[in-house]
Amino acid sequence: MSRMPSTLAGTVDAIRSMRIRGADAIGVAGARALARHVQALDGPPSRILAGARRAARTLDAARPTAVTLHNSLGWVLDALRGEPSASAMRRAAADAAKMVSMEVAASRAAIALAGARQVPDGGVVLTHCHSTAVVAILKAAQDSGKTVEAIATETRPFRQGLRTVRELASAGVQAALVVDSAVSHILATRDVDLALVGADTVAADGSLFNKIGTSGVAALARHHDVPFHAAAGLPKFTRLGPDDVPIEERSADEVARPREVPRGVRILNPVFDRTPPSLVTAFVTEQGLASPRQAVRRNLKGLPPEEAWR
Amino acid sequence: MSRMPSTLAGTVDAIRSMRIRGADAIGVAGARALARHVQALDGPPSRILAGARRAARTLDAARPTAVTLHNSLGWVLDALRGEPSASAMRRAAADAAKMVSMEVAASRAAIALAGARQVPDGGVVLTHCHSTAVVAILKAAQDSGKTVEAIATETRPFRQGLRTVRELASAGVQAALVVDSAVSHILATRDVDLALVGADTVAADGSLFNKIGTSGVAALARHHDVPFHAAAGLPKFTRLGPDDVPIEERSADEVARPREVPRGVRILNPVFDRTPPSLVTAFVTEQGLASPRQAVRRNLKGLPPEEAWR
Repeated sequence: MSRMPSTLAGTVDAIRSMRIRGADAIGVAGARALARHVQALDGPPSRILAGARRAARTLDAARPTAVTLHNSLGWVLDALRGEPSASAMRRAAADAAKMVSMEVAASRAAIALAGARQVPDGGVVLTHCHSTAVVAILKAAQDSGKTVEAIATETRPFRQGLRTVRELASAGVQAALVVDSAVSHILATRDVDLALVGADTVAADGSLFNKIGTSGVAALARHHDVPFHAAAGLPKFTRLGPDDVPIEERSADEVARPREVPRGVRILNPVFDRTPPSLVTAFVTEQGLASPRQAVRRNLKGLPPEEAWR
Repeated sequence: MSRMPSTLAGTVDAIRSMRIRGADAIGVAGARALARHVQALDGPPSRILAGARRAARTLDAARPTAVTLHNSLGWVLDALRGEPSASAMRRAAADAAKMVSMEVAASRAAIALAGARQVPDGGVVLTHCHSTAVVAILKAAQDSGKTVEAIATETRPFRQGLRTVRELASAGVQAALVVDSAVSHILATRDVDLALVGADTVAADGSLFNKIGTSGVAALARHHDVPFHAAAGLPKFTRLGPDDVPIEERSADEVARPREVPRGVRILNPVFDRTPPSLVTAFVTEQGLASPRQAVRRNLKGLPPEEAWR
């Protein structure tokens, strides 16, 4: 993350190859890449706007499922509209990218505090994949004097769970790692207080799109009467309905090497899934816990207008 | 499997290290190792019986969760009782080990036919881990002229799903591989007709003990209104109650290498879990489909008496 790619194509590639990972990081990187691109544009405002929109669409295609990127690009595009000159537009783009970065940081901090209040002292929290927000919540709970134990899933195929336990350990949170399919066993045999995950996208009906397996954690949590929360700040929300959020399918190689599987066996590698709002006990938002309906109603107003793209 | 270890310790080691895998193979290997051990014993019958029981206990400890091994050893021990001489006992042990092997093969064939009848033509079957019985069922369904599509989970940490898709592909069954946490997504987005797994142990209350993740597949199948069947022949049943079946915990190294995880992070590696009878739609037995209650009532009578061990 410290060395950001300097071109549009470099940023797209870094997102696609998962060198830049996590919705927040991708959103910030996209906004910065777009703003940088705008610095090199010249001519009448309409031509700059057209060039910026083309660049935004290229960047936006790098991650189909997560909307933080789309929203971050939308905020930058929206900032360009109505600016009278090339130089004003360049300044607006740079300012908007900085704003996106600050908004993301502020959103994360607010969610960390709101989420930490919900974690009981001595509590056991089950999490899936890696979420910067979840790590921040658990760290904030620990820093507030509570003792927290986290159980993290490995999260195949990319094994983001290893990053989760590393970050939790360095934050002083007691962490354990299990394979993904141990979720049901853990819920049945341990006193888990809360299942807590991040969010890639929250659709207009309150459906949560997040790492493959999230919908399973949610359904199993419901089966075992454990609340299921998803940390989702403003940039995760979208006006798209649940059927319009594409589920990214990544390369088979991430699951198995070609020689491990005979010809004719298909490898399916959908990397996200949809958790219906009925299985989400609450979203952890900047304003605290919210039902899916409340969270959507509140956040859709804050999104950049879709006209910014047209 | 072709080169069987020739000593007791060699067999224990081959089972522990998973060179011999799968309940049936382990049961047969254990019975043979015990019979071989008995061939080297001499003296009065009581001393031979004591030596055989000691050897059986050593073998039995190699796999804590699966009872096929315990039952197979029990059948051999039971055959020794009442035999009048060392030579008669040696013959009885060798015959009993052959019987175990034949019983296992007969049970598997009967289950394949019974199970194949339940698979609909054009059906989609979701399976977890590797089960010789499940592969045999799907192969028998395909051989009977039906078209079957199987979706198999990878099954971390040991990735037995790779073996499943390899065997299905060579049996001509259309197979797909997914990561374990894709089960919920597959059930939500595909028309799955049946979730079908093997069994390591069926406890006296009808609880199914099988590979870690099985209970999750069962609960998610229930959530999505998909029937959940487990193939379980006589050797899988036990008189033990669900709380008396130990869940084997294997080495952390199977989940992550030490350098992947910081000191202080615990890795939990339970390799089996318990699926309550309420989530098992039916067991596929030698006599066809049976409810958990029916299956237990029918099979407990066929087990070797526990007195054989005392």
